[in-house]
Amino acid sequence: MADPATVATHPTETPVRRPGEAPVTAARRRHDPRARGFASDNYAGAHPEILAALALANGGHQTAYGGDEYTAHLQEVFRAHFGPAAEVFPVFNGTGANVVALQALTDRRGAVICADSAHINVDECGAPERVGGLKLLPVPAEHGKLTPALVGREAYGFDDEHRATPQVVSITQNTELGTVYTPEEIRAICETAHEHGMTVHLDGARIANAAAALDVPLRAFTTDAGVDVLSFGGTKNGMLFGEAVVVLNPGAVRAMKHLRKLSMQLASKMRFVSVQFEALLAGDLWLRGAAHANAMARRLAEGVRTVEGVEILHPVQANAVFARLPREAGERLRKRHRFYFWDEAAGDVRWMCAFDTTEEDVDAFVAALREEMGR
Amino acid sequence: MADPATVATHPTETPVRRPGEAPVTAARRRHDPRARGFASDNYAGAHPEILAALALANGGHQTAYGGDEYTAHLQEVFRAHFGPAAEVFPVFNGTGANVVALQALTDRRGAVICADSAHINVDECGAPERVGGLKLLPVPAEHGKLTPALVGREAYGFDDEHRATPQVVSITQNTELGTVYTPEEIRAICETAHEHGMTVHLDGARIANAAAALDVPLRAFTTDAGVDVLSFGGTKNGMLFGEAVVVLNPGAVRAMKHLRKLSMQLASKMRFVSVQFEALLAGDLWLRGAAHANAMARRLAEGVRTVEGVEILHPVQANAVFARLPREAGERLRKRHRFYFWDEAAGDVRWMCAFDTTEEDVDAFVAALREEMGR
Amino acid sequence: MADPATVATHPTETPVRRPGEAPVTAARRRHDPRARGFASDNYAGAHPEILAALALANGGHQTAYGGDEYTAHLQEVFRAHFGPAAEVFPVFNGTGANVVALQALTDRRGAVICADSAHINVDECGAPERVGGLKLLPVPAEHGKLTPALVGREAYGFDDEHRATPQVVSITQNTELGTVYTPEEIRAICETAHEHGMTVHLDGARIANAAAALDVPLRAFTTDAGVDVLSFGGTKNGMLFGEAVVVLNPGAVRAMKHLRKLSMQLASKMRFVSVQFEALLAGDLWLRGAAHANAMARRLAEGVRTVEGVEILHPVQANAVFARLPREAGERLRKRHRFYFWDEAAGDVRWMCAFDTTEEDVDAFVAALREEMGR
Amino acid sequence: MADPATVATHPTETPVRRPGEAPVTAARRRHDPRARGFASDNYAGAHPEILAALALANGGHQTAYGGDEYTAHLQEVFRAHFGPAAEVFPVFNGTGANVVALQALTDRRGAVICADSAHINVDECGAPERVGGLKLLPVPAEHGKLTPALVGREAYGFDDEHRATPQVVSITQNTELGTVYTPEEIRAICETAHEHGMTVHLDGARIANAAAALDVPLRAFTTDAGVDVLSFGGTKNGMLFGEAVVVLNPGAVRAMKHLRKLSMQLASKMRFVSVQFEALLAGDLWLRGAAHANAMARRLAEGVRTVEGVEILHPVQANAVFARLPREAGERLRKRHRFYFWDEAAGDVRWMCAFDTTEEDVDAFVAALREEMGR
Repeated sequence: MADPATVATHPTETPVRRPGEAPVTAARRRHDPRARGFASDNYAGAHPEILAALALANGGHQTAYGGDEYTAHLQEVFRAHFGPAAEVFPVFNGTGANVVALQALTDRRGAVICADSAHINVDECGAPERVGGLKLLPVPAEHGKLTPALVGREAYGFDDEHRATPQVVSITQNTELGTVYTPEEIRAICETAHEHGMTVHLDGARIANAAAALDVPLRAFTTDAGVDVLSFGGTKNGMLFGEAVVVLNPGAVRAMKHLRKLSMQLASKMRFVSVQFEALLAGDLWLRGAAHANAMARRLAEGVRTVEGVEILHPVQANAVFARLPREAGERLRKRHRFYFWDEAAGDVRWMCAFDTTEEDVDAFVAALREEMGR
Repeated sequence: MADPATVATHPTETPVRRPGEAPVTAARRRHDPRARGFASDNYAGAHPEILAALALANGGHQTAYGGDEYTAHLQEVFRAHFGPAAEVFPVFNGTGANVVALQALTDRRGAVICADSAHINVDECGAPERVGGLKLLPVPAEHGKLTPALVGREAYGFDDEHRATPQVVSITQNTELGTVYTPEEIRAICETAHEHGMTVHLDGARIANAAAALDVPLRAFTTDAGVDVLSFGGTKNGMLFGEAVVVLNPGAVRAMKHLRKLSMQLASKMRFVSVQFEALLAGDLWLRGAAHANAMARRLAEGVRTVEGVEILHPVQANAVFARLPREAGERLRKRHRFYFWDEAAGDVRWMCAFDTTEEDVDAFVAALREEMGR
Repeated sequence: MADPATVATHPTETPVRRPGEAPVTAARRRHDPRARGFASDNYAGAHPEILAALALANGGHQTAYGGDEYTAHLQEVFRAHFGPAAEVFPVFNGTGANVVALQALTDRRGAVICADSAHINVDECGAPERVGGLKLLPVPAEHGKLTPALVGREAYGFDDEHRATPQVVSITQNTELGTVYTPEEIRAICETAHEHGMTVHLDGARIANAAAALDVPLRAFTTDAGVDVLSFGGTKNGMLFGEAVVVLNPGAVRAMKHLRKLSMQLASKMRFVSVQFEALLAGDLWLRGAAHANAMARRLAEGVRTVEGVEILHPVQANAVFARLPREAGERLRKRHRFYFWDEAAGDVRWMCAFDTTEEDVDAFVAALREEMGR
Repeated sequence: MADPATVATHPTETPVRRPGEAPVTAARRRHDPRARGFASDNYAGAHPEILAALALANGGHQTAYGGDEYTAHLQEVFRAHFGPAAEVFPVFNGTGANVVALQALTDRRGAVICADSAHINVDECGAPERVGGLKLLPVPAEHGKLTPALVGREAYGFDDEHRATPQVVSITQNTELGTVYTPEEIRAICETAHEHGMTVHLDGARIANAAAALDVPLRAFTTDAGVDVLSFGGTKNGMLFGEAVVVLNPGAVRAMKHLRKLSMQLASKMRFVSVQFEALLAGDLWLRGAAHANAMARRLAEGVRTVEGVEILHPVQANAVFARLPREAGERLRKRHRFYFWDEAAGDVRWMCAFDTTEEDVDAFVAALREEMGR
């Protein structure tokens, strides 16, 4: 359901109309484009540069299902970031990217080692299990980060038919808890995985935020660190929709094309996914948006630290702030600004910044927090 | 791969730039927006009114995963077409819509009776079987149309544990072969299905073309004929992407929300799917585009009938023309205009018209066909 | 439900007791061990030699899950029949054997070409689709037999991601309709399959009957004909339970051990499956039982041919007789002797002979048929 | 592979032959029926009373797939133990029983809360996920036992489409770690589960050992405690093979017959499963064997406690002893008596007693342990 807080006062429904022109669409504006919150980076809309790209790719006929010029060119765009062996497969959404990638890295007996807080484990309604027949081996992981030692706890029984065979280690960068692996940390995980004959999948739903946070190229903690396949997130960084599976080690996967189709992730008018990625990645839009969101989260964390009684739970390394505050204060605050409880019983909350979060948004939120904590 | 025929001569790559302004996107135009073919209605781009709607819905924060104002309003939009009991669930693509719908109508033992030419049987890489664990019971069907008698051939063994239980009849309107069921034909199938305790799913990837062809409201051959759930197609009728599962009989389904999510068809920024549907369905855009495509197919069929040696294989009732011609002639023609062989050995071809097909496109194509047949 | 016809008069419940001894089991005999019918070869019990083997293997501890001496020796037993490359994997039942075998021969995109009458298509409640995520491509096949030409009808689209990839041809020997492929016919199918890069699975639920009918060694129409993997049937030929997947071409499969386990077909006390197979195959028990059942079916067919108005529908080449007779006559006859209608509407019936069918059983049945047809 | 320790000295291969008679089977004895170990209760063979029952049920024809007299009667046998609402569905093995039961209790969105040590989580090669599409929610559980509080940790998000819906709590009685829930503990778990609208599955692979340990009827901690469905173990308590799904709350399940078939757990000659269960349960064989195995484990634990340096890890409440000893000592001991390391790195071992374990076996084992610990 729509949250009253975010849609409170918005313009009356008016069609888009230019002076002297007929309405260009039967749709109407139904929301306040000035209202923003801290619920999620996917509450934000699309970046105007992304919308402009859609118009560019429109018109005429282009071969469907990825045979278009934009998807062809997209290979170059991704190779510029991830190296000459990279192959990109645009898909619809993050769960789709993850499940296609994990299927490509496993056979029918495969299991996936992941942090217990991993999106694939807790937020995909069992899609890995149901669509891919995958067994997950979740490991409790501080701040959402796996380590070689944690991987090692599940890395056994490779020939034991009673056990689902560990074939992949899946990490999330940045993590679901707002923390960021260093390139060295990822390299160490990859080495451990590869020593055991496993491959590494990186869920990069917010990969741009991680690169911005680390101030390194995307390949520094992926291709160069030994990651085999990644899910590249576009939606949370300003696209309307669209993610991609990026294969960094083509020898590690099989049947990618078919897996994308049978997993219902093959867009017919793929040019409209690919051109968004081009708009994001051919220049620096991907980095601008992510760096800005990260900066807003840092500003938010700084502000929060000045409010007594609020505890920050995880290192603030990207665009998320996790905090603990008295539940009643949290509930009052939610009536003013939209966000989610992460653990309602404990009073833990998540505050997310997006590419369009402003300094004013942050400052107003901190002020509201201070007020509610002061009651 | 991109087809040389469709991208032959196009402008050099130039950024979108207005006089005196900076480039608004790093993406470049890479195709000729004037080139069109007859390969598929999903080779077409998006209708300008659809693009305009995207801009309307942009800006500000809106609750993700369908909690936005556009999706809330979309319920009314669909109810205006399908009656007050209808519930709409936007998804990404047609295979996704079909597989979500079929899962919602079945339990773990369920089987689906369909025409052997059904998209779910031949063009979804086994997604119904692999994602939904569904067993299909395909029946040979003339011109792609099931009948009560054909349904009856597979409607048995409902309590026999050795047989997958027939629980759904799935029909496609218009069919994959360009034919259209009358409302009475669909009503008869629904009655047969319901008598056996089965439900009816309608794959409406081109449902607008069917309504335009029949010149009846959408509900005449769906809600009013007894269909329980349908897949509503948007992509082939001018959207960038987006389809919807429309539940007409809420008592027939369960767990729709969860099925959409676990089938990886839940869009986070759903407002951008919903507003496209609003642009399509709040006015008459859906009908204009479909009626035009149908008219172009009729014009094409009329032209084809004047060319000796070309046989039209199925009644031309919507936006497709299926024809048989000498394979060599077909191959020469394909070098000039893009289309698909349907049965390469037999020389059978499919020619599709889209919302943006012009009379000139058709006439030029018929002229080319005449030339190639005359060699 | 138990059929009154088969259990009419049986001894009162008496415990098994030897003179002067305590009862050796709390179970009681509940059926008439003299009553037999023509419903199915799996209505028969176990051969006494099989029961004797169970006692042999009993006592002491043996490594579970196939690490026992009987399973180790079973490799030699099967290699004596199928050649030195054969590997045997005992499982519980025929559906299990088929689905394990087909999974071992496919990856996630795989499809299986089969006759539309194949057991995997019509009698396994969708287990191939649901457990294995397999797509079946059934082909109408006269007398249940595929041919290279029929295989060819579905052998296309190997690189087309929209189509489930044909990876296996599955045939049944002898077929579900009581017919038998010659070794040459199977060799031709294998050649066609292999030319297309597909493998061949043989469902040998009644493989012994086929060998007996052809009067050739088992390997003549399997290993030597190019079959890659087969399901070897034990239950219908006198075992209590137990089938086996026999891999003839180890290069064609992967993860067999794991697939058997995850498909829930791994017996813990496997010695009791393996020793039954040893009893069946180390001597000629397999052939005696099958040849006898075939002879009884021939005798039955000869008798049936003398009864006016009864049509035999398929060549009687193994232990089954399919016939068409007036439905009312069929129903009267069923009250006297148990059997199944195959197509109730058409009046088609199936009469099966087993290893324990006697000449008297057959003659009495033919006499009853004659009587009922004469009314 | 067979363990040399268990098969050391055995009679040369000799056929079973009675004086003056022909050999009754081509199979040969290949193991030493006097050798026993502590590796697993499924290393044991079958109880002689079970074998005797097989012979009783043999001969004549009986309707296949459960339509026989033995399976019909088995309903009464189980109802005598579990109450008049119980329905029994014989299957092949424990994984099969669990996965059929869990599918019957869930729909496509369902998740199962279980202890992290549960057999379904660690020893079924992912069958619940792969065959049933189930998501497991494992919880760390001391001594393998869930509690209402532990269940509560995962009992949330019932309407949240992003989370797999918790629909079942699965417990194992006795647990995989040899501990036993009291009836009150199970009742409390059932109450918690039912309050949340979930059902309870009990994996009773060793249910007889639990009843013997508690000295209560089987229904005291199942039917009477609120369990909805259980897996009843026969194999580990002296059957050759065979387990059963017992539905205690018929309103909680659906499609049982079909689920058993499509999960490849439907035995054609089901009389041979059912009569074993009758032999086990109609008298007190089930209890005699289990009580004896428990007594042997107690004797073993008492002996172990007299050996310095060996730590017993879990309460010894049924037929298992888990212990920790120096790994080298464990390895030396394994060369003399077969058993498994449970955690090889830690030196943890599992010693299982079976219905046929003797006091001499136990005493010899303790003596050997003492020797190896003393080196």
